[in-house]
Formats: sequence, C-alpha cells, structure tokens
Amino acid sequence: MKLFKSISILSLALFLLTSCGSNSGNIVNNMAELKSAIDKAQAGDVIVMSNGIWKDAEIDFKANGIVDKPIVLKAETPGKVFIEGQSFLKIAGHYLEVHDLYFRNGYTPINSVIQFKSDEKNAAYDCKVVNCVIENFTQLDRRKKDHWVEFWGQRNELLYCYIAGKSNDGPTLRAELKGNQHANCHHIIANNYFGPRPRRGGPRGETMQLGDSYTSMVPAFIEVRDNFLDRCNGEVEVISSKTNYNKFINNVFYKCEGSLVLRHGNYATIDSNWFIGDDNSDNIGGVRVINTGHWITNNYFYNLKGNEFRSAIAVMNGIPKSPLNRYNQVTDVVIAHNSWIDCISPLQFSVGSNVNKSDVLPKSEIRSALPIRTSVANNLIYNSKTISEAIVKYYDTPGDIDFQSNYVSGVEGIENLNGFITAEMTVANSQSIVPLVTVVDRNAALFNGFNFSNIKNDIFSNGRSENQAGAICAVKNTKQNLLDVDKYGPVWFEKSKKNTNTKQLSVKSSEELYAAFEKINDGDTILIDADLLKLDKLIKVEESVVLASSNKDQKVRLQFTSTEQVPAFELGAGVNFHLNHLIVEGTKTLNCFEPNQADMSIATNVFVDECTLSGFHSIYKSKKGSFADTLKVVNSELKDLVNGFILDSETEAKGDYNAEFLILDNNKISTIENVLVNFYRGGYDESTIGGNFVFNNNTVEGAGKRGADEILLKTQGIVNVRILNNNFSSIESGFVARLWGEKNNVESGNTIYGKSKIVSDEFLTQKLLY
Amino acid sequence: MKLFKSISILSLALFLLTSCGSNSGNIVNNMAELKSAIDKAQAGDVIVMSNGIWKDAEIDFKANGIVDKPIVLKAETPGKVFIEGQSFLKIAGHYLEVHDLYFRNGYTPINSVIQFKSDEKNAAYDCKVVNCVIENFTQLDRRKKDHWVEFWGQRNELLYCYIAGKSNDGPTLRAELKGNQHANCHHIIANNYFGPRPRRGGPRGETMQLGDSYTSMVPAFIEVRDNFLDRCNGEVEVISSKTNYNKFINNVFYKCEGSLVLRHGNYATIDSNWFIGDDNSDNIGGVRVINTGHWITNNYFYNLKGNEFRSAIAVMNGIPKSPLNRYNQVTDVVIAHNSWIDCISPLQFSVGSNVNKSDVLPKSEIRSALPIRTSVANNLIYNSKTISEAIVKYYDTPGDIDFQSNYVSGVEGIENLNGFITAEMTVANSQSIVPLVTVVDRNAALFNGFNFSNIKNDIFSNGRSENQAGAICAVKNTKQNLLDVDKYGPVWFEKSKKNTNTKQLSVKSSEELYAAFEKINDGDTILIDADLLKLDKLIKVEESVVLASSNKDQKVRLQFTSTEQVPAFELGAGVNFHLNHLIVEGTKTLNCFEPNQADMSIATNVFVDECTLSGFHSIYKSKKGSFADTLKVVNSELKDLVNGFILDSETEAKGDYNAEFLILDNNKISTIENVLVNFYRGGYDESTIGGNFVFNNNTVEGAGKRGADEILLKTQGIVNVRILNNNFSSIESGFVARLWGEKNNVESGNTIYGKSKIVSDEFLTQKLLY
Repeated sequence: MKLFKSISILSLALFLLTSCGSNSGNIVNNMAELKSAIDKAQAGDVIVMSNGIWKDAEIDFKANGIVDKPIVLKAETPGKVFIEGQSFLKIAGHYLEVHDLYFRNGYTPINSVIQFKSDEKNAAYDCKVVNCVIENFTQLDRRKKDHWVEFWGQRNELLYCYIAGKSNDGPTLRAELKGNQHANCHHIIANNYFGPRPRRGGPRGETMQLGDSYTSMVPAFIEVRDNFLDRCNGEVEVISSKTNYNKFINNVFYKCEGSLVLRHGNYATIDSNWFIGDDNSDNIGGVRVINTGHWITNNYFYNLKGNEFRSAIAVMNGIPKSPLNRYNQVTDVVIAHNSWIDCISPLQFSVGSNVNKSDVLPKSEIRSALPIRTSVANNLIYNSKTISEAIVKYYDTPGDIDFQSNYVSGVEGIENLNGFITAEMTVANSQSIVPLVTVVDRNAALFNGFNFSNIKNDIFSNGRSENQAGAICAVKNTKQNLLDVDKYGPVWFEKSKKNTNTKQLSVKSSEELYAAFEKINDGDTILIDADLLKLDKLIKVEESVVLASSNKDQKVRLQFTSTEQVPAFELGAGVNFHLNHLIVEGTKTLNCFEPNQADMSIATNVFVDECTLSGFHSIYKSKKGSFADTLKVVNSELKDLVNGFILDSETEAKGDYNAEFLILDNNKISTIENVLVNFYRGGYDESTIGGNFVFNNNTVEGAGKRGADEILLKTQGIVNVRILNNNFSSIESGFVARLWGEKNNVESGNTIYGKSKIVSDEFLTQKLLY
Repeated sequence: MKLFKSISILSLALFLLTSCGSNSGNIVNNMAELKSAIDKAQAGDVIVMSNGIWKDAEIDFKANGIVDKPIVLKAETPGKVFIEGQSFLKIAGHYLEVHDLYFRNGYTPINSVIQFKSDEKNAAYDCKVVNCVIENFTQLDRRKKDHWVEFWGQRNELLYCYIAGKSNDGPTLRAELKGNQHANCHHIIANNYFGPRPRRGGPRGETMQLGDSYTSMVPAFIEVRDNFLDRCNGEVEVISSKTNYNKFINNVFYKCEGSLVLRHGNYATIDSNWFIGDDNSDNIGGVRVINTGHWITNNYFYNLKGNEFRSAIAVMNGIPKSPLNRYNQVTDVVIAHNSWIDCISPLQFSVGSNVNKSDVLPKSEIRSALPIRTSVANNLIYNSKTISEAIVKYYDTPGDIDFQSNYVSGVEGIENLNGFITAEMTVANSQSIVPLVTVVDRNAALFNGFNFSNIKNDIFSNGRSENQAGAICAVKNTKQNLLDVDKYGPVWFEKSKKNTNTKQLSVKSSEELYAAFEKINDGDTILIDADLLKLDKLIKVEESVVLASSNKDQKVRLQFTSTEQVPAFELGAGVNFHLNHLIVEGTKTLNCFEPNQADMSIATNVFVDECTLSGFHSIYKSKKGSFADTLKVVNSELKDLVNGFILDSETEAKGDYNAEFLILDNNKISTIENVLVNFYRGGYDESTIGGNFVFNNNTVEGAGKRGADEILLKTQGIVNVRILNNNFSSIESGFVARLWGEKNNVESGNTIYGKSKIVSDEFLTQKLLY
C-alpha cells in the first residue's frame, strides 16, 4: 500500500512539475539571463521573459527540443512583454516555440524581425511562433528593406499572430527556399491577423512572398490557411506565391487592394477563400493566375470591382518559352465551384496580352501565349442587380478554355455563351455582410472533369455528396462569422484601437501656435483665433492634427517670412495633416509642405480644404524616399507660385514614386511660373500599379513655363491619371498634359483657351525593372 | 458430407477456370475477332491472339479491368505472334495488360507503335505491356518521325520488353505529360532490354525522352529501373529527363554513346546505375546535370573516356534567368557515394560555359550562371594505372561546390585539392568485367550532409550501417552478374542472333555478277574471277556483302559504261557494302555509290580497301534523308573525278547531316576537278554532337576548284574534324580546309606545296535550332 502511495505521489509531483513547467518555467529578467537560459536549455524547458520593456533585444533562440518536448520561450504575461528599440528574434534548431511576445516602438537592425534561422548553417525545423504581435515595427527610412517574418528551414509555423503597419520596403512575410535544407518546407501560416499594410508606392510591398523566381522550381508545400488579411494594400500582390504546391485555404481577404497572385511555381491549391471588395474601390482584386496546374475551387468573390490585373479571376497570357523570372503560359488550371457575387467582371483571360507592343518591348516581354487546357466548370455567378457586362472578358483571342455547367443569375445576354446557363438562385442569408447564394434547382447538371471527385467539400466544409454549382453546396454548417476578427491573432491583443482622447487647442499668437505643436497628441485639433500670425520659423508637424481658423468664415492669415530654403510645414512620419479655412502665404524660397528628411518611415498625408495658398516656391515638394499616401487639395485657391506639386524624387527607375494619390478638386489656380504638377515614376513594372492623379473641376489661369515642349501637368510614368472638367486659360507651356494612352490615363470635359493642348501617347518606352 | 464435396469440386472448377483463363483464355484468329473480343471484354478476361503473322494489325485495346482483375491481351505462344506490316497497338482504359507480342518487319502508320492512349479523350491508367518485342520496326524513310512506345495516362508500366533498331527520327520511348490526366504519372519502365540504336546523325535520337521543356514543371515520378541499355547510340542524350521527380535506378548503360541527361525538370534521383565505357571511345558518357535538386548517388562509372558533354559527370553552366527551353542554373545538387574507376575525367563543372561567345550568340544563349549549392562528397576515384590528369575540371571559374571526403587512388597531384584525400584501395573482383573497388581503411571519415542519412544502401543494396566512400559499401550481396542479359527483356527472345549461314559466291561475267546480287543473303561474299567486267547498268546492293577480286593480287577491273545520271552501286537500307581489291571505273556522269532513293530507313555503310576508283562524277553522293554511319576508304587510289565525297543534302539547318563518320586513310588522290569533300551540317544544336571527318595519311595532287574562296575539304558545321599527316600539292582552291576552331577541329603534320592553306575560324555564326 505504501508503495502505491509513493508512486501516486511521485506521479502527482511529476504531473505538477510538467504542468508548472509549461505554465511558468524559468523566469529571465534581462538579456544576459535569457542568453544563459537558452544556452542551457534542454528538451521540455520553458524560458519565461519577465514582464516589461525589453529594449534592443537581440534574441538568438538556438536550441534543440524533441518532438513531444519542445523548448518554449514565452512572455510572463501574454501581451506584457514588449520588445522595443532595435530588436529581433532568431530561431534555430529543432522543436522550439515562442509565445506571446509584442514587438513595437522600434525596428530590426538586421534584415528581419523574426527569422527562422540563426546563421547560414543553422536554420529552424519544427518550430512555432504563436500569439505574437509585430505592430508598426517599421524602419525609420521606408526605403530600407526588411522582412518581418522570414521563414527558413522546414516545418515551421506562424500561428495566431497579429502583424500590421509595415510601410517600408520589402514583403512583410517571406519564405526563403534556396538550398535543400529549406526546400520541401511545409511551413504553416495559420489563424493570423494581417492588419493594414499601407500603400507603398511601388513594388516590394507584398504581405507574403513565398519564394522567388530563382526558387520557382522548388517544392514548398506551404500552407496559408484561416488567416484574416485586413486592407493589406502594400502593392498589387497581397500574396505572391512563387514556389510549388502551396495551399491557400479558408483565408479572408478583406478589402485588400491587390490579389493573391500565383506569380511563379505551379500546382497551387486556392480553396475556400473569401475575397471581399468594396463598392468604391476598383483596386481590390481576387486571384491572378500564371503558370501550370493550379486548382481554384470553392472560393467566394464578393463585390469586386476590379479589372485586368485586379479582376476577380485574372488568367494571364504567358511569354512563349518565358525566361525564368517572367510569365509562363497558363496550362492545366481548374477553376471550379467558385461563386462570384456582385462582381463586375468575374473571369478575365489573356490579361496582360501585349502583342500590340512589340515595337516598344523586347521579344522576351511579349505575352502572346494564350491560356490552354484550362477548365472553368460548375461555378456560380450572381448579381443582385442585373448587369449586362461581359462576365467573361478576353484581352486576346480565346485560348483553349473548357467552360462547362456554369450557372448565372442577374446577367443579360449570356444565351450564346457556351458553358453558361441561366438559373434561378436564392440568397440564404441576405442580412450577412456576404450574402450566401445557391442555385434553386438542386438537380442542376454538373460537369465531371478529371479528378473533380477530389473536390470533396464546399466552402463551409460540407460534403459534396449532394453536389451543387458554386462554392456553397448547402447552407448549413456555415460555421464562421466571417468578420469575427477574434478568431485571428492573439486573444490578448485588441486589434482595433481607437484613439478617443483627442482634444482641441485654441491659440492666439505665433508663440502659442509653436507651443501647441510641441504638445499635441495624435488626432488633436488646433484652432487659431486671430487675423494674422507672422511666422519666422518652420512648423514641425509630428502628429496627425487639424489646423484651422476658429471661425471658418473668417480665415486667419498665416504669413511665413523666412527666406531660407525651408518648408513652412515640415511633416513627420505617419502624419495626417489637415489644413482648413486658412490663408497661408510664403516667400518664393519656401515650400509650403515638405516631408521631414530624417524620418521617412511611414506615409504622410496632407488634406487642404477651403484655404488660400500663395507665394510659395512649391505647395508640396517630395524628398527621395518620402511617400504620401494622399495629397488632397479641394475648394481652395492656389496662386502666385513658382511650382505647384513636385513629386519627382524617385529618380532611380525602380518603379517607386512619391505619392499614391494626388487629388486636386475644385480649386482656383493662377499665376504659376513653372509646372503645376510634376509627378514622376521611372521604371517599367506592370505588376505594381500606381501613381494616381486626379485633376477635376479646377480653373487654371496664367500658368506654365513658356515653350512648345513644356508641360503644365507632368505625369511621366503615372498609371492612373484623370483630368476632367477643368478650365485652362493663358497657359504658356505647349502642353497642358501628355497622357499615357495604354494605361488608365483619361481626360474629358476640359476647356482650353489658347494653343496649349492635351495629347495622348499610346506607349511609353521605359527601362525594364527585371 | 455431400455438401462439402460439392463445394470442393466447385472450388476446383473455379480454380481451373481461373487458371485456364489466365493461361489460355479466349482465342482470336483475326482482327475482326480481336476487335469483337475487346469490345466485349470484362474485368478478368483473357484475350489470346493465335500464333502466326498478324499483318497490318491496328489494335485498339480499349477496355476496363479492375484492380485485381485486369483484362489481358496475350500471344497464344510467347514469341509466336508476329505483328508485321503497318501495325500499332493502342491501349486505353484501366487495368489492361498486353503480353508476349513481337513487332517486326514493318512500321507504324501512325506516330507510335505502342501508345498508351486511344485518342485525345481516352488514355491508359494502371496498364502494363510485358514481355513484348519491337525489333527494327523502323520507318522506311528515316526522316519520318515516330515513337515506338508513347506513354500517356498514369501508372502504366513497360516491363521485360526488348526494343532495338530504331533508326528513324524521334525518341524510341517518350512520355507525354501535357494535361492533368497525364501528369503525376508514376509510370514504371523496368527490366527491359534496350538494344542497339544506331547513330542518327542529328538530334531526336534519344532512347527515352520523359516530357519536354513545355512540361518541365510537371511532376512525373517516372521510374526507370533495372534496364539494360546496350549501345544506344542514337544521339548525345541516351535518356533525356525533362520532368520532375524521375528516378533512374540500377540501370546498366553499356557502351552507350551519350549520357543520361537531366535536361529539364528537377529533383531526379540517379542511384546505383552502371555506366560502362570503352577504351576506344570518347563518345560514351555518364550523367549530364542541369537544373535543381538532383541526387546522384551510388553510381559506378567505369572506363569512361569522354569530356565536356560526354564526361562521366558533366555539371553544366546555366543561362541566367534562362528561357524555358534552355539551360537553368545548376543548384542544390548532391553527388555522393559514386565511384569512378579508370575514368579520365570524373567531374567536370561549368560544362557548356560560352561566355567567350557573346559576340556571336544572343544574350539568352550565354551560359554564365555557375553551378551553386552543390555537394560532392564521399565519392571514390580509382585508376588502375596512375594518371596525372585533373580529376576535377572547370570550364569557368569554380562555382559554389562543396567538396568533402572524396577518396582517391591512382591520381597524381591532388595534395592541394580541397575535399579529396589519397587512400589505399582494394579491387575485390579483378576478374569481373567491372572491377569492384573499395577503400581499405574501413574507418575513413565521411561527410554527413543534409539528408545524407537518406542514402541508406549501396549499389548492391547493402545497408550503409558500416558506411564507406564510393558506391560499394561492402563486397557482399554483389547480387548481379552485370552483363547477364537474360535478366532483361522477354525470356523467350534471343537477344544476340548471329548470322552464321553466310556463303561465298564466285562469278566470272557481268551477267553472273548481276545474278549474284539478286540472290545473295546478308553477310555473303562475291568473289570475281575475271580481268574485266563491263557493266552497262547499275548494281543494286540490297544486302550486306563483300565484293572482291578472287585473287587480291590481281585486281579485277569493273568498268561502268552508263552515261545516265545513275550510280554504279545503289545501296539499300541497312547495308554494309565492302569493296576490296578492285579497280572501278566510271563515266563522268556516274556517281560510284549512292543511297537508294526509295528506302532510307536505316544507315548504309561503305568500306573500300585497296581499290582504285576513277572517272566518276563523285565517289559518294548523299540524298536528302540518307544516312551513312561509316564511309571508309583506305589504302586506295582515287583519281580523275569531278568530286570526291558529297554529303550536303541536309539543307534545312535542323542539325541533321548525312554521315556520322567519313574516314579517308592512306589513299592516293589525284585530279579532282571540284571539291574532294563537301560534308555539311546546318543548324546550331550543341546538345547533339556529330559529323566526324578523319583525313589521315593521304597524298592529294591536282585537286580543287580554282578560286581564292574555294575549299578542297569543306566541312561546314561538322563538329569533329581531324586532318593529319597528309601531303597536298597542286591544289587550285584557295583553302585546303577551313576548320571550326571552338569545336573539335584539328590539323597537324600536313604538308602543302603551293599557296593553298588550312585556316581555323574560332566561331561559326549559325542558325539557332530552338
């Protein structure tokens, strides 16, 4: 009896030890203790980082657990261990886990924040990062490239993490596969919340990049599932899959301005994902298809308004015998059992065909190889308001596409479209943010293609024994509330923090104004109660702020008097600067707005409404590396300037540019000596689409440099230009604008008095980026 | 009791039925019965083709068996069912087997002899072809392309077959993978005997081609194991692997003039193969490596004398960002535990580097990408006679190759070669055709690379628990007699048939001579006993024959008198024509030898020894599509000719040419009005290497067309040219020869009296073939 007792006490002790181990472990309080604990760590150990701020933490977690006894590195309290300053985490060895760390207020001094290797010889195998946060951990200079999560080794996992706010160069997450020790990696990226990534203004702003063209032949088997991607707007490729056999399953792409792009590599599985668009954006895409053997099944495309590269499904033309880094022909792709709900153009083929450009591009750039051996079957297309647009659009002659048993409701004129059948449909859940649509006739015939029996379930994991067209086979087991963001990322982390403590300050003098800018917090408002303030030094805008006259009908005059080459307002990183109901006057050496030279970490935005800006050298002058997401001037008067908006600092022809949106609407503009706009993008890179210039409803008088070749609104290389309903008179320059015809450059409703004109050049000869 | 008895009788009856079924089955006697039997076939049926000749048999074996009940189509007696004439076999459906058929005396009227599909919609799955023979079933016109075995579908097998004698255009065996229904095919090609395939004289003479560049991204998983490849000389690629994950295991490459080439696709396994060379051939190669991730382990390279493309291991340079159909960079290749025994140059790297040709080739052809991330470890190099050649040869700067623990014996000067160690070795079986070599020190250190633990066995399937360098871990379980050809192909088929019934005929008049050529059989000899025969019509040589004077010291004169443009001797397909001790005289309109226009199925050869040939328009004149393996004239006198040897009929610049070897040795040549040799190959295709011209020890007097640009020995595009120790005088043409410097064109020891000369042009600008 005693023996038994001893054994059960021993068992209990062992149990307690084990469960203690996994709950509390060995607490470390500083880097030296952490390093020592890692050095001594044995399989089954738990290392606990004490609560608080760990500054400049260079963690090299190199150890070896075993299959059922991982070595765990975790926070004392989830969310209370802050990694700040110049910090990173490297993981190398076998069976390691990291939990609950929070990276913020800093950036990595190396090329990644979390890196699944320690050095060239030591990578991670069977390791996990769970419930961690990387928030705004972005480089001070947005031109500096890094990755926030860099996968190396094999069978590593990123689970339940929150990652948001990367505005610098480089994909947020990148998988590296060069070398047999990193190939066949089977990594899992699941249940994470990828929060907003701002527009980057050029390429290399992917949220995930899985390999590159040099590893496009490598089997990866990376699984990306059950993640929420929230407004990941970095560039046109939200996810860029560049290796083989990757799986993208049950992810929500929520209003991401871009697509899941099968850029290189073959045989991807894209199953049961939700692509959710917005009425007001034609930048939100779905899936862009290149290469061979992909299966695109059970996906739900809702409210997508994009075209071409950003259409719901964009099947591209390839380059015959394409170079490794360009576009292989699409072959053997299956697009089956998907649903398009209220999408303007569900299926586009031969996207990127540029046969007409053989004069301006080398032969190795001409995408003339049509998609072939591709099946489009058993899909569902529904529009709540009947449309007459083509649901299948070709940019070249149709290739070898086999359309079979696709059911359609709410589209006119499909009678002669082979493989498409009009059907009555029902909306099961019209209250939901995404209406759930099925075909009413439960016996509607379906196509049985090669290996279609492998499509066993619908988007809700219902079996397809009673098979139906579209992504939804049965409206039961609709297990998920799509927008329940609590299912993604760490439970301890609040994803949508609102700043509700904003305040209003009132100032009456220049001194008070300067003082106010010293003490404001993000989101505050400064109201000026005076007639005139003379300002002899620049104003540094370090927080998002509204600056306005206290009485909007009595505009305050701000008179900047410096004759040095400084700006009136110097804008810090990430600032939204609003200027309302003010008269701002400068000297001809001053620029009104300039980004801060020192900190170019995050895009800076300027919003001007009902102001008069006069007497400046420029209204806005970019710097190399600076980026404005939006520069918007409306209902204002701009006059007596040397230049208007100068956004021309990215001179390296790498596809970068200085602002995503420049919007000038309903302004009165006069007496501009030189150019009104110089908005420049160099380098040909059609896979990222940017630079937007909107010039609408303005009157322009007495502007432009004299000369037949001079241009008032210069937009060289800018992809989206809209010049509408303006009135130009006394323009000195030969051209008001020269548009890029083949891109989205349009003008209409403009009146030009005098000889100046707007022309459209179809093609632009540009330097290739690759 | 009675019940039990009944049951056992029933069981017996069932057993007999089943065993009868699988042994005898349903006999069919003609195509109508066969077709009907196929149409009605059920799972488990056996259809038996009756013994005899089936002429023009177009068999479409389309049926469906099930996993344990295949439908079998077989010969009544193995080897007694002959498929002749214009015949083929198509197989489509599931679980079908074909046994014991013998294809001979004919050719296919379609593009394949055995084809694993019936039509575009119907391919074969889980089907087998076993114990069949395809012998000399070659097209009448060797330019006509076909494949003898064409794989489609998935999981099909070619087992224990004998296939030999294909001389026409097109790979002998080809796997097709276009379309998901043919990808991931997992075919097995095992235990077959691939008999001699003659040199083709250009590309498209592979013995196996697994996919093509358009399917180079497709997973194939084809297994090629336990086959014997006997002198498969068709072209420089014996096997051309162009898809992914193929395995080549335990095959014997016996004196094949070419290599196993990893041309496209990645991640091949080349394990435990035997590559056996010959002292007298530098055309016999080993493995040529392109692309990513191949594992080359446990192979035995014996007596290989090749270089560059034909070296034992040729690791190529790639083209940076290569087009799909060209050369990807070599990365992540493992070359471990191989043995090189008496090979002159085991390891060659950056083969194909052509950085120096950027002036004559487009950028997309320049192979400048060095092999990287490649391991060469635990190999064994042994030479029975000590050599001082470099065992590692670079054609460019060394790439990123990791040499580790390679053991060497019989090579001087390796002291400074990193990763190579001199070791004492022992030859276990010096009597064997292939000596079995191991390191004496059983504890010699080995390198433990990433995943090297997956190399579990040696070439004899011995476990590697007591691990050793090289392919042989232990000289036990040397289970195979390598050259026991009975292990390969059908047991009922005799692989090496010798014609022992040759006879000698004696003739005394022209009539007797013509009559003799009517009745000879293959291998006979015709001896002429006369002083002079006048011949007013051509002689058709339809069988291999020796034509000679009965007394070799009293040469007979054959005087051809026709003034029509006919040949003196018209050569049929596959003929070896020997002419000894004769004086042959023509008219200036006659060519001495010409291939038969109608039948160009097989190469034709001419051997002339101790003859005088005079008064002809040409000695030999090719026709478009004709091919001579060897044209050899020795110890003879050639005089009073318009031309000598005209081999210039392949004018389409597709890399084809009209003879593999033209050998002129120790002849006295005089009075040639025009060219002595015009040997032409058009089209740039460096992956096939051919056209050999040997001009040795001859005296030439009074020859060549007058003109500074004229050439006496024209060899445009011919890769191997040797002009040695000749004596030229009174040459009218400006050049005796213009050699192609970068190729294997050499001259030495020649004496030229007068102004004519031999020059060497380094590069040739040629039309690209792809």
